[in-house]
Amino acid sequence: MNENEKKVPSVVIRRLPRYYRYLGELMKQGTTRISSNALSQKMNVTASQIRQDFNYFGGFGQQGYGYNVEILYKEIGDILGLNDGDTMIILGAGNLGRALANHDTFEKRGFRLVGIFDNDRRIIGSSINGIKVMSIDELEHFIAENRVDIAILTLPKAAVQSAAERLAAAGVKGLMNFSYTELKLPNDIAVSNVHLSDPLMFLSYEIKRKGN
Amino acid sequence: MNENEKKVPSVVIRRLPRYYRYLGELMKQGTTRISSNALSQKMNVTASQIRQDFNYFGGFGQQGYGYNVEILYKEIGDILGLNDGDTMIILGAGNLGRALANHDTFEKRGFRLVGIFDNDRRIIGSSINGIKVMSIDELEHFIAENRVDIAILTLPKAAVQSAAERLAAAGVKGLMNFSYTELKLPNDIAVSNVHLSDPLMFLSYEIKRKGN
Repeated sequence: MNENEKKVPSVVIRRLPRYYRYLGELMKQGTTRISSNALSQKMNVTASQIRQDFNYFGGFGQQGYGYNVEILYKEIGDILGLNDGDTMIILGAGNLGRALANHDTFEKRGFRLVGIFDNDRRIIGSSINGIKVMSIDELEHFIAENRVDIAILTLPKAAVQSAAERLAAAGVKGLMNFSYTELKLPNDIAVSNVHLSDPLMFLSYEIKRKGN
Repeated sequence: MNENEKKVPSVVIRRLPRYYRYLGELMKQGTTRISSNALSQKMNVTASQIRQDFNYFGGFGQQGYGYNVEILYKEIGDILGLNDGDTMIILGAGNLGRALANHDTFEKRGFRLVGIFDNDRRIIGSSINGIKVMSIDELEHFIAENRVDIAILTLPKAAVQSAAERLAAAGVKGLMNFSYTELKLPNDIAVSNVHLSDPLMFLSYEIKRKGN
């Protein structure tokens, strides 16, 4: 990592997964080269925004001639750290935890599920997508014995802060939090809060705006 | 709706649910008034960004004196159309469909689940969160008989485009699509694609940046 990368605004980083997905689609379709204008039309972002975003990382290729799709895909993947073999665990084996354990896009993006934890004795010991559900009491022991980079939290709201503190203390580096709670944690742990009702609220606005 | 609202950029609209959630939290904590500076610190957005966003809707109150939390919460809710009683159905009663059917935040935000559809005979007729799973063959008939504003799609990738076309033709106004497919649809239907791996990719970047 060089010094320049440190200054990339978070909104730009948040757009990188979207570029990455689009480029993956283009590769599948056999597209080898694309201009920022063509990419812009497909992604509904201005071409100048794309060039500005890419400039944070050195630009990725010549204007006019366009971008090499495969190289750009690989470079963005590297910037995102998708080739680092990040491992993850899921806390909470309810419907959402199960759905995420079976979500094959995570693996496609390079994330490997290594453990699932719950405190319900009726679930502990059962298997989800080939992974045995463990008691949440075993959390620290498991993390001490296995590399765990990311924890996905699908716990009840009341349980999530203390679980997050345990994960941070045990050395987990990133949390994906589905529990609609702002976590208070040391700065060295990265948190991404997922709010599934946000897209619904956006749709509600759009429906109203379109006057349906 | 006035003419000004039509020009609000989509990125601003995408931020409204976040303001709405924060204001809800503040209300719960008993905060009655907040300055854009204080809101800015809590939300990790610049105060000028907040003022700029709110100016699209007339500003919502005096600078210096701060915003009335309850009124602002209600106004943003109205802009988002959360008090319109939007109804929704879920297509796909797998783990993710089940999780979303049981996701009580949707109801808290004013969205009412009225139907669940699947094509698996073993599931059709069973109940999820008090709602009977119907055959996908009954889709058009159900929509003709019931108000359906939004459909949540948790279908296999191969099934989602044709289902979306049927929903659009039947008059559904918004789609929340979990299927990692860009849908090609008439412009009068609003679509929000949800990519659950995007927050993971963001975490991967953050972990790498922090040099853990």
